[in-house]
Amino acid sequence: MKVIRTIAGLDTAPGTGLVPTMGALHDGHRALFRAARAENERLVASVFVNPAQFDEQADLEAYPRDEGRDIEIAEAEGVDVLFAPTLEEIYPSGFSTWVDPAVTGAEGAARPGHFRGVATVCLKLFNLVRPERAYFGQKDGQQVAVIRRLVHDLNVPVEIRVVPTVRDPDGLAVSSRNARLSAEERERALGLPRALASAAREPHPVAAARASLNGLEPDYVEVLDLGEAKVLAAAIRVGSIRLIDNVLLEGEIQ
Amino acid sequence: MKVIRTIAGLDTAPGTGLVPTMGALHDGHRALFRAARAENERLVASVFVNPAQFDEQADLEAYPRDEGRDIEIAEAEGVDVLFAPTLEEIYPSGFSTWVDPAVTGAEGAARPGHFRGVATVCLKLFNLVRPERAYFGQKDGQQVAVIRRLVHDLNVPVEIRVVPTVRDPDGLAVSSRNARLSAEERERALGLPRALASAAREPHPVAAARASLNGLEPDYVEVLDLGEAKVLAAAIRVGSIRLIDNVLLEGEIQ
Repeated sequence: MKVIRTIAGLDTAPGTGLVPTMGALHDGHRALFRAARAENERLVASVFVNPAQFDEQADLEAYPRDEGRDIEIAEAEGVDVLFAPTLEEIYPSGFSTWVDPAVTGAEGAARPGHFRGVATVCLKLFNLVRPERAYFGQKDGQQVAVIRRLVHDLNVPVEIRVVPTVRDPDGLAVSSRNARLSAEERERALGLPRALASAAREPHPVAAARASLNGLEPDYVEVLDLGEAKVLAAAIRVGSIRLIDNVLLEGEIQ
Repeated sequence: MKVIRTIAGLDTAPGTGLVPTMGALHDGHRALFRAARAENERLVASVFVNPAQFDEQADLEAYPRDEGRDIEIAEAEGVDVLFAPTLEEIYPSGFSTWVDPAVTGAEGAARPGHFRGVATVCLKLFNLVRPERAYFGQKDGQQVAVIRRLVHDLNVPVEIRVVPTVRDPDGLAVSSRNARLSAEERERALGLPRALASAAREPHPVAAARASLNGLEPDYVEVLDLGEAKVLAAAIRVGSIRLIDNVLLEGEIQ
């Protein structure tokens, strides 16, 4: 595996799959790498903690970083090129062109500027790596909708693929932020996947999820339309940590 | 020459040069076609009156359209593919992702949303046509700076080329909007290129241009930094018609 830190050091090739990440790689990323590895001749992963998509400075500062471990995991999963650029490489002096998705509700409402940061860095990565396919996790369901919309609206020649959420045995969706949960906080956090899973079978899933989140105060509970699928999505805060999750209501994740 | 009206009908090829236009082709466009024809194996031109870049509905409605003549001119200049899409093809239902250049001053200040529309449609055309080079006129000097910034910021693999302004024998920069000037208005409009040309030789060109515009009220007079060149730029209004122009102060247009 080659670790590339500069744009000048990148090259492009047909048959490339891209997995964009913010590092702190976990089983969710492993599932993305495996899906991409199975469908592409060449696998490029990026590791870049994108400041533009953090709406809270404290969250950005606390975001876990362990590049040595990321490199080991990526190599073990068959990544061919790991693109790990510096901040200056992605946002050089004078940077001033943003991709602005007109997104409403859910994360878009709760985190001002978040999807502008996501959309901008993803378009840059698509232009730099020029993948045939790019892979995103179902857990960031609204992100998938934003990226699909961007690709369609701006005519970007890439296929967006979605990989189902990976969960720990207790049901919590794996997330880089889970490492910051205490044992007691983790127990409370499990109320989120449990509420979503039970509510998804009810006739009024949003109301049912709200009613069964007993004690957890959600930022939102919403049905998100991802195109081929509808999901029931929610965000909660446990201590200082914000967690999101969603479950399939209808259609198919792909 | 093939006239293509759908995205599905477009194909891409190496060695392509792109000249994006809003139609109503004139000698300024001919200069762009010739520059592109000389440097590329395949020449694609687009004709699309982009509503998103008009800040005034009346200006959009009055914008001249003559597709038959555009086709004749493009064909005579050796254009291989004329892409003339419908509105729905470029902005399909649900379109909601915009490219937002943080532009200040001059046209950016005078025409809110103008460069968002320009940047969005240009990025779409770059993605659809995938040219190696794209050609823009010096007359829209700030547009060149916005597009160059966009290409750099978003890592778009295209080279931006600038072609010097073409002028009628009386000195007026050619423009699709000139057709709407009466003889008397045209005479007044000539005050713009005359003021810019004389002011460019003065130690304080902005003040000198303002002083010699006698009677013409400018939207702005500014020095624009286009990267390799600085130009003295101004916008005036003659009757209902808004005209822009600029002249080289230092550096080289390329």
